[in-house]
Amino acid sequence: MRRAVSLAHSYRLLNHGPTTLIASSHAGRRNVMAAAWVMPLDFDPPKLAAVIAADTWTRELVEASGEFTVCVPTTAQADLTLAVGSLSGRDVDKFARFHLDVEPAAFVSAPLVGGCAAWLECRVVPEAGIAERHDLFLAEVVAAWADDALYRDGEWRFAADGPRTIHHLKGGLFFATGERIRASKP
Amino acid sequence: MRRAVSLAHSYRLLNHGPTTLIASSHAGRRNVMAAAWVMPLDFDPPKLAAVIAADTWTRELVEASGEFTVCVPTTAQADLTLAVGSLSGRDVDKFARFHLDVEPAAFVSAPLVGGCAAWLECRVVPEAGIAERHDLFLAEVVAAWADDALYRDGEWRFAADGPRTIHHLKGGLFFATGERIRASKP
Repeated sequence: MRRAVSLAHSYRLLNHGPTTLIASSHAGRRNVMAAAWVMPLDFDPPKLAAVIAADTWTRELVEASGEFTVCVPTTAQADLTLAVGSLSGRDVDKFARFHLDVEPAAFVSAPLVGGCAAWLECRVVPEAGIAERHDLFLAEVVAAWADDALYRDGEWRFAADGPRTIHHLKGGLFFATGERIRASKP
Repeated sequence: MRRAVSLAHSYRLLNHGPTTLIASSHAGRRNVMAAAWVMPLDFDPPKLAAVIAADTWTRELVEASGEFTVCVPTTAQADLTLAVGSLSGRDVDKFARFHLDVEPAAFVSAPLVGGCAAWLECRVVPEAGIAERHDLFLAEVVAAWADDALYRDGEWRFAADGPRTIHHLKGGLFFATGERIRASKP
């Protein structure tokens, strides 16, 4: 079940470097793309950084709306992640094509993609120079959610044989998030 | 054995979101810190983005030298990663304290930390505004290296029971990079 994650803990949804889906919406049009280059940027208020290439339909929707969601897909969605990363929303409605369930976000117009492990609702922090020069967007996280079967009590708790978050290597190659390691101080 | 990775493939060393060590050096002083908030930014020329907090000794060394290395630690270095992230280089020489082996980089003054899975030599791309406002540094990758026991022929190839890269959740909690998944297009 999707439950709210405190803003103070929202960085933990991305801190381990999972690949993501970025969803966007503006004036009745919407899109979803795959994005591996997303990372936390600050704790309080929580912010993140995301690369959104200049020629994408997502870029147009994000620049027009000033909003997007970052959805964290699972091992069960690796094929979907590859698929939405391989087509342009200018050519096809990916929500219809891939039968995506969506739920409305609480604070932004972009949707939350169903079946994901976590979701962050984001408002762009204006930094036009780095968007133009580097395709880099900074955003404040205004709400965060996670599937409580996978994340609860402030951390990811994956079952040995259950779904996990995924990390993109290249093309259609991913790694599942693996074994938990507790480090000790020397 | 440490072998060169082509600049065109260097993004693959970070694309899956591993946590990193950032090493720096200036005028005979050097430091190493833990940094989870590092991601690729561009393919050609390869660039990356990294958050380096304003109050750190690393920040001083990076701003003074305009250079740093990003080293990718392994499961065997989780304790070390926690340790170097828990002390300031202003107070202690972490290289001596933790008996770190280092090798010289090819193009930058910052060292390469021994025992890591991969290394990226970086030169800061001047974007002073986002450094001041967001502690965010952009850098061009000018050389890249990987341990050929872990990365070869253009991708990570972890043995089932061997060392892997690690992903930071919070505090001393990490995940190992897990099972390889090949996605298929629908």
